[in-house]
Amino acid sequence: MAHGGDLEAARALFPGAPEPWIDLSTGINPVPYPWPAPDASLWQRLPSAADERALRAAAAAAYGVADPACVVPAPGTQILIETLPRLLAPTSVAVVGPTYAEHAAAWIRGGHAVRAVAGLAEAAGAMVAVVVNPNNPDGSVHATGDLLALARDLAGRGGFLVVDEAFCDLEPAESLGAHLVPGLVVLRSFGKTYGLAGLRLGFALALPEAARAIAAALGPWAVSGPALAIGRAALADRDWLSRTAAERAADAGRLDRMLGRAGCTLVGGTSLFRLARCPDAPALFRRLGEAGIFVRRFAERPDLLRFGLPAGKDQWCRLSRILKPAASAPLGQGEDEGCA
Amino acid sequence: MAHGGDLEAARALFPGAPEPWIDLSTGINPVPYPWPAPDASLWQRLPSAADERALRAAAAAAYGVADPACVVPAPGTQILIETLPRLLAPTSVAVVGPTYAEHAAAWIRGGHAVRAVAGLAEAAGAMVAVVVNPNNPDGSVHATGDLLALARDLAGRGGFLVVDEAFCDLEPAESLGAHLVPGLVVLRSFGKTYGLAGLRLGFALALPEAARAIAAALGPWAVSGPALAIGRAALADRDWLSRTAAERAADAGRLDRMLGRAGCTLVGGTSLFRLARCPDAPALFRRLGEAGIFVRRFAERPDLLRFGLPAGKDQWCRLSRILKPAASAPLGQGEDEGCA
Repeated sequence: MAHGGDLEAARALFPGAPEPWIDLSTGINPVPYPWPAPDASLWQRLPSAADERALRAAAAAAYGVADPACVVPAPGTQILIETLPRLLAPTSVAVVGPTYAEHAAAWIRGGHAVRAVAGLAEAAGAMVAVVVNPNNPDGSVHATGDLLALARDLAGRGGFLVVDEAFCDLEPAESLGAHLVPGLVVLRSFGKTYGLAGLRLGFALALPEAARAIAAALGPWAVSGPALAIGRAALADRDWLSRTAAERAADAGRLDRMLGRAGCTLVGGTSLFRLARCPDAPALFRRLGEAGIFVRRFAERPDLLRFGLPAGKDQWCRLSRILKPAASAPLGQGEDEGCA
Repeated sequence: MAHGGDLEAARALFPGAPEPWIDLSTGINPVPYPWPAPDASLWQRLPSAADERALRAAAAAAYGVADPACVVPAPGTQILIETLPRLLAPTSVAVVGPTYAEHAAAWIRGGHAVRAVAGLAEAAGAMVAVVVNPNNPDGSVHATGDLLALARDLAGRGGFLVVDEAFCDLEPAESLGAHLVPGLVVLRSFGKTYGLAGLRLGFALALPEAARAIAAALGPWAVSGPALAIGRAALADRDWLSRTAAERAADAGRLDRMLGRAGCTLVGGTSLFRLARCPDAPALFRRLGEAGIFVRRFAERPDLLRFGLPAGKDQWCRLSRILKPAASAPLGQGEDEGCA
């Protein structure tokens, strides 16, 4: 399965591209949380129950969850995506999409009957529904009330709603963390927003009984000592988060203007990535790649490209040079800010 | 389930004990590998396929595995112990023991019919057998030929043998990594030998088809960027490993002499922990606890205590003061080396 962040694939596609590559193929914040160096003991000893409790409390506060017993820390959200399908006997699963492809793949691997559906209404017939909110790659958002109604409907028939809020942190969109009901499992990523994807930290949020079942499937010490400590510090830093939300939203606006000048049309996105329909997108993908800039393309939608955010003047200006203004750009609007 | 390493439990049991505690309740090497500080990019970006490939190659070389495709890195062995039972339809499982209790617990959680057996011969009737080799807590070792014969027998009936070699690195015992056959899954821990339990790194070794199935259950990016890099460096450092094997074996000998002077009888162990039968073990557990030294006791075997290794003169001498010579100790043999 193709994923963003695979610069090895980029180098294979464009062996002549200049280094260093600019990796815009993911939705990872390019300006990471200034993480504290972990104390040596966090590497050496087994993660303690107290470490994990402190992280759960910080995550509960950050995600609006009343009871820390509803929080399951994991070494990244991906392993939760793999684990959930193995906790249920084979059943019918609807994945609202197109969306992050690992969801459907994991339920299929778990032996379930999976179908892709276009919206919440079509998901109502299944026993398990999976919704990414905001969606990746198009940023579309479902209303809280609609999701809760679906969760209640599924729970009433013994089913589950999984809502992957991987890209929720920086958006005004409401999280379901504050609205946990039976039959609802919310997934929260840490590494994307905090720019620490290599740390491997993510969470499942669910009422305590379901949370205990998920935690049992991971076993003790699933999360590393450094991740427990760094996650706890970062999740408690609300100032950094609000500053970051404003800064990345501004970056997204700058990227939108740049894409607009290049003749691309914004399809959607979040503060960490933008999905655009571009004139001759395959040629643009190639021009970017030859210039050492890796963006995300979609085999099934060759007209679309997804752009992560550059960071720093050099990256912005390298991108600006490739995203040349279309012939139709209004006079004087050809240059990105600060890239003369 | 009670585990070693839970100093919170120790503090609750002995609220008046002096700090810092000496944690001898695990089998984690108290002298860690001098790990390199991870490059910032290892925290920030998703772990790459190249990072993981390099770790798999280093692990294959360290464990005597011919093909790196047989190596599955995981965020600790524990999550592999949780994962294996969910990959098989409910079947009959024999766990050779008494041993590390999470094996049986995980297979029970996975819906299997689990029984404890005393030896390999009794395991032969099951579809899945689990053996910890060397065993924890008694250090007993099975012959390679016996294990391979059991693996072949189980595989012939569509079953599996799981051999947990968590404490194999520092022992002269032969690893099955060099003898992978169909139906054999070997588990290798990283954190114990290298004194980096908080890093969360472990491996499954199996022929490629089984390895792929295990890897798929964990999904991509299961291991953190820092763990991939630190594990790779440490596993390639054969000098450190042989020095460590000699040093920890010497420590184990020193601990044995100390336990012997205190009237305890060695039951078994590895270079990282010693299992001893002590006169009035519950009282000794209490005296140690009141002095801020936490060792492992066993609810079902109150006559036994398991001791991890102290490190540094202060720890050795604090332990020596509690492990007072029994009245029967020969004259002049009451003091530990260097603790006047």
